[in-house]
Amino acid sequence: MEIELEKNERIDDLGLNGLKIIQNKDGFCFGIDSVLLSDFAKNIPQNSKVLDLGTGTGILGLLLCGKTSLREIYGVDIQAAVCKMACKSIKLNNLENKFKIINKNIKDLNTVFEENYFDVIVSNPPYKKNNSGLKNESETKLLSRHEISASLEDFIKISSKLLKYNGNLYIVHRPERLADLFYLLRLYNLEPKQLRFVLSYANSRPKLILIKATKNAKSFLNIDSPLIIYNSDGSYTTEILKIYGKDI
Amino acid sequence: MEIELEKNERIDDLGLNGLKIIQNKDGFCFGIDSVLLSDFAKNIPQNSKVLDLGTGTGILGLLLCGKTSLREIYGVDIQAAVCKMACKSIKLNNLENKFKIINKNIKDLNTVFEENYFDVIVSNPPYKKNNSGLKNESETKLLSRHEISASLEDFIKISSKLLKYNGNLYIVHRPERLADLFYLLRLYNLEPKQLRFVLSYANSRPKLILIKATKNAKSFLNIDSPLIIYNSDGSYTTEILKIYGKDI
Repeated sequence: MEIELEKNERIDDLGLNGLKIIQNKDGFCFGIDSVLLSDFAKNIPQNSKVLDLGTGTGILGLLLCGKTSLREIYGVDIQAAVCKMACKSIKLNNLENKFKIINKNIKDLNTVFEENYFDVIVSNPPYKKNNSGLKNESETKLLSRHEISASLEDFIKISSKLLKYNGNLYIVHRPERLADLFYLLRLYNLEPKQLRFVLSYANSRPKLILIKATKNAKSFLNIDSPLIIYNSDGSYTTEILKIYGKDI
Repeated sequence: MEIELEKNERIDDLGLNGLKIIQNKDGFCFGIDSVLLSDFAKNIPQNSKVLDLGTGTGILGLLLCGKTSLREIYGVDIQAAVCKMACKSIKLNNLENKFKIINKNIKDLNTVFEENYFDVIVSNPPYKKNNSGLKNESETKLLSRHEISASLEDFIKISSKLLKYNGNLYIVHRPERLADLFYLLRLYNLEPKQLRFVLSYANSRPKLILIKATKNAKSFLNIDSPLIIYNSDGSYTTEILKIYGKDI
């Protein structure tokens, strides 16, 4: 396999069916968010048509290709450089027939796909509002972390348009945005059906939230037991070890 | 003090500044919900004007009179019989000058109070939708548990009307209604600012949610560390012991 790496790019092993990913060590590298979201979404039905909004290096799509037997997945990102990296990772893993990258603003996807096309949409969107927080970051990190090119509402609006009746959106986000998320999801007819909090320790404040919302569903939210990362002695919990396999 | 008890009524000690409450043992007796909500809301500023929507036996108001130095509190309930009990409890505790009971549907409160009158509103509303769950219960329990006389939206709508600018609503509810709550709160300009989950054990699914929403506030939700009731050995946690004092 001939894959040409740019300066600062490196290949990392995902510890899952031999999958590998190319990342730029000066850019936005994947974190626990994508790994936990791929686990949260791992019961995607066989042969699903899947869309990853804001795919970045393609990590979420790669993990889902390893964990599920989805039919096809499209990863969309506005950043040309990360799309190029994602394409190389797809080639490196021989997933060209299954996993396609689209270099576009997610707001423009209605010109690419028909309405109600997807069974499942996943997203690890930028967490921060455009006008919040420090922005002394590289352009890549800025676009990955702040709602500059598309707002949370844009992510939810396009998801609602492109999901089938009863299709599922899986999203990871920060706790402080939970009210924004629930308000917007219901506004766009994506009913929050499952919520899980990720805590460092059993008695910590949550650091991440995982949400499953179903298009056109009735209102009744299931909140899972919290996903706890560390035991009180600082070692990883059994659940985290299971999610990461032996590569933690 | 001459307080006449009806058949089936009993006086219980609240274990807080000598406060007592009259309850009907065949009716809806207060549970952990009211105790945890009174603790969650205990930082009410001095001299606040407070409203308790769906006050029942007045438990929440009594606890707040014991825990805070509020100026006045009105408890509203549609059920005449529980209002009568609440009035007797207020007399028993010599709180007649501070705590008043109004026997009305909460939907009709705009004819009683001016808009923007209250600093704080607290509520332990019925948890179940009118059309959900079994209803082979006494009328009192029915009205206390199901949204028969007023919906969750009615509780939130009237709260928004009667709260001052930057006034706070404290509410306890079931986890499965979190999306309903957040959607409606924002719809009526009450921004969810604080959320706490109550879990039996550190690794359980939550059984209750405590929410503080602020009128006209900006969106940014603080999620607290979970409130855990039992240690893994089945004993009460230090926090629960502290909330209940020695009377658990």
